[in-house]
Amino acid sequence: MRPKQQVNMADVARRTNVSIATVSRALRGEPGVSEPTRLRIQAAANDLAYVISPEASGLSGGATGRVAVVVPGINAWFYSTVVAGIEKELRAAGLDTLLYCLEVSTQREAFFTHLPLRRKVDAIIVVAFPLTPQERIRLEEMGVSVAIVGAHAGDFLSINIDDQRAAEQAVGHLTRLGHTKIGMIRAVDPEGMSYESDRSRLAGYRAELKKAGLTGDDLVVTPPWGIEGGEHGMELLLSKPDVPTAVFCHSDEVAVGALRTLRRAGIPVPQAMSVISIDDHPVAELADLTTVRQPVEEQGAVAGHAIVEMLNGHEPTERATVLPTQLVIRGSTARPPSETTGAGAVPLVHTSDWRP
Amino acid sequence: MRPKQQVNMADVARRTNVSIATVSRALRGEPGVSEPTRLRIQAAANDLAYVISPEASGLSGGATGRVAVVVPGINAWFYSTVVAGIEKELRAAGLDTLLYCLEVSTQREAFFTHLPLRRKVDAIIVVAFPLTPQERIRLEEMGVSVAIVGAHAGDFLSINIDDQRAAEQAVGHLTRLGHTKIGMIRAVDPEGMSYESDRSRLAGYRAELKKAGLTGDDLVVTPPWGIEGGEHGMELLLSKPDVPTAVFCHSDEVAVGALRTLRRAGIPVPQAMSVISIDDHPVAELADLTTVRQPVEEQGAVAGHAIVEMLNGHEPTERATVLPTQLVIRGSTARPPSETTGAGAVPLVHTSDWRP
Repeated sequence: MRPKQQVNMADVARRTNVSIATVSRALRGEPGVSEPTRLRIQAAANDLAYVISPEASGLSGGATGRVAVVVPGINAWFYSTVVAGIEKELRAAGLDTLLYCLEVSTQREAFFTHLPLRRKVDAIIVVAFPLTPQERIRLEEMGVSVAIVGAHAGDFLSINIDDQRAAEQAVGHLTRLGHTKIGMIRAVDPEGMSYESDRSRLAGYRAELKKAGLTGDDLVVTPPWGIEGGEHGMELLLSKPDVPTAVFCHSDEVAVGALRTLRRAGIPVPQAMSVISIDDHPVAELADLTTVRQPVEEQGAVAGHAIVEMLNGHEPTERATVLPTQLVIRGSTARPPSETTGAGAVPLVHTSDWRP
Repeated sequence: MRPKQQVNMADVARRTNVSIATVSRALRGEPGVSEPTRLRIQAAANDLAYVISPEASGLSGGATGRVAVVVPGINAWFYSTVVAGIEKELRAAGLDTLLYCLEVSTQREAFFTHLPLRRKVDAIIVVAFPLTPQERIRLEEMGVSVAIVGAHAGDFLSINIDDQRAAEQAVGHLTRLGHTKIGMIRAVDPEGMSYESDRSRLAGYRAELKKAGLTGDDLVVTPPWGIEGGEHGMELLLSKPDVPTAVFCHSDEVAVGALRTLRRAGIPVPQAMSVISIDDHPVAELADLTTVRQPVEEQGAVAGHAIVEMLNGHEPTERATVLPTQLVIRGSTARPPSETTGAGAVPLVHTSDWRP
C-alpha cells in the first residue's frame, strides 16, 4: 500500500513543471538542481503543504551503506556480468550490494508495490528492466539515488549502449556483403513483454535496410528470448515463402539457437546463410559467430562508480552514459550465395566453420 | 583486528572436546546440541569466564533480515546459477541477499579479517570457497548460521555433489567404452590454489582407473581453470610421449577449451579422441559434449531453504546434503580408435559432430 498523503511529489512536479526526480533532488538538498528551480519547487511544496516523508527521504535514517541491485535474473550472462562490474565498484567504496532477482512481472509488481527497500538502502541500480510508469514514480518517490543499466526511465541516471547503432553496425555489415534478403529474429521475455533494447534494435534494423533501399518487415519474427527462442525463430524464417540469405539476431544466445536449427536443416553457415548478432558473449567465439561487441562488465562498473559519486555528493553532470560497440567479424557471415545455390536450393554439405 | 578477549570459543571447545560451532550453538541457545552437552559447555564457559561477545552473537542486535552470500565470482555459470537458487529461496522467505564476490585470496583475507558482516547479517552462505582454517574459525566466532555450497568446512552445514562419484561416473563411461589411455585435465584457480572439487575429482579418476586395472598419473595435467586452461591442458596432453585416446576434464568449460585445441590440431572427436567432463553447462549441449550433470540451481535452493529453516529455529538433522549426479551421453565420446588410426596417426578429417 502506498502511504496516504493528500499531496505527493507528482503534484509538486506538476505545479512547477519539472520532473518528479528533480522535485525529489531539490527537496532533499541534492546537487544537480539550479538555485532558482530549487526555490520555485520549495515554494510550490510550501503552497501545497507537501512534506517529504521520512520513508521517502534517503537522509532520514542516515546512510545504510547498502545499494540494491535489481535484475530480471542472475543466471544469464548479461545480468551476471553487469552485477560483477557493479559489485566490484561498490565493494571498493565500502558499500554492500543487496541483490534482487525479479524474473516475472508479478514479482516486479509486488516488489515496487511493497518497496522492501525503504530504509534499507542508499541507492538502487536497476538492470535492463522495462519499468512501468507507476514503478518509475515509486522509485522517484523513494528519494534515493537511482541508476538504470541497459535501459532508460524518466530522467534517472542511465548507462547503456546505443542499441539502434549496434543494430545498424550488424545489419550494415550484411548489406555491405551484398545481402538483400535480411531477416531479423527479435526477442521478447517469456511473458511476451518487449524490452527497450529489442525495440531499438528493430529500429536500427529498419533504418539500415532503408539506407540500403531494402525492406524487411515480412522477414521479422519474434520468439521468446534465449537459445530455444532462436531455434524457433529460425524455423519461422525458414517457413517464409522467400527465405532470407542472412539473419540479424537480437543477441548471441538467440543466434546460437538459430545456428542449431540451420545445422539440423542442413543449411551451411555462412555459405547459404549468414548469421550476425549483438553481445560478444563467450559462446560467440566458440561458435565462430560474427557479432557486435558491447562492454558489459564496464556498464556495471560505470553505474557502480556513478552511484558511489552521487552518494559522496557529486551529482554527475552527464545523466546518460553511452558506451561504444564494435563489429567483431568471425566466420558466420559471408557474401550471399548466388541464385542457384541459395538457401532454398542448397545441398546438404558439411563445413567445419562453426565448431567449438 | 580480532577483538581482544582473554578467552575465546576455541578455549571452551578445547576444554569440552567439541567443535567451536557446537560451542557457538550451545551458548546462543540454538537447537542441535543435546542438553547434557549444552550444560557441559556452559560449565566450561563459566569456568573460563568466557562471555559470548555481542558482536559474536547473531541474537545481540535482533534479526537483520539479511543473509550474506560469498562467492569467488558471479560471472561464471556455476556461481551465478547457485546464487539464483539461493536468492529465490531467501526472497520467498522475506529475507534479503547481500552479495560479496571475492575473486582473489587477498580479497578473501581482507574480508575474513575485517568481517564486514558483523551485525549486518543473520546468516552466511559460502559458495565453493577453499576456506583456510583461520577463515573457518572467524566464521564460527561470528556466531551466525552458516552453510557451505560446493565444498566442506568444519562441521558447517554443507550442500554438495559427491565429486569423487561424479568423476567415477565420467571415467567409468570411458573405461566401459574400452579406453585404456585416459588423461585428466584438472583445474586450479588463477592463483594456483586447488579447490576441494578438483582434488575429489582427481581421487575419483584414480579410483576408477585402478578399478579397471589402469594407471594414469603421467597423463594428469593441471592448467588454470576455464576455457583457456582447457586449451592449454589439451596441448600439454598432446605433448606427452604416449597421447591418450580419451580425456576427462574437470568441468565443461575446461572441456570446451580442450575441444578447441583438438579442432586446431585436426584430431576428430570422438573418432580419435573422446572428451567427457562434469557440469552439464548450457554450452555442453551446444558442443554435443558428453558430461556428468550436477544440479546447480538446486544446490543453491537447498542451501537457501536450510538457512531459512535454521533462522526459524529448526536446526537441520542432516549436516551434509549430497545431491545426485548422472551421465548425459552425447557425441563427444566413443570407442577408442584402433591402433593404426589413433590420435598419433590420424588423418585430418572433418566431422560434423560437435558443431552448435
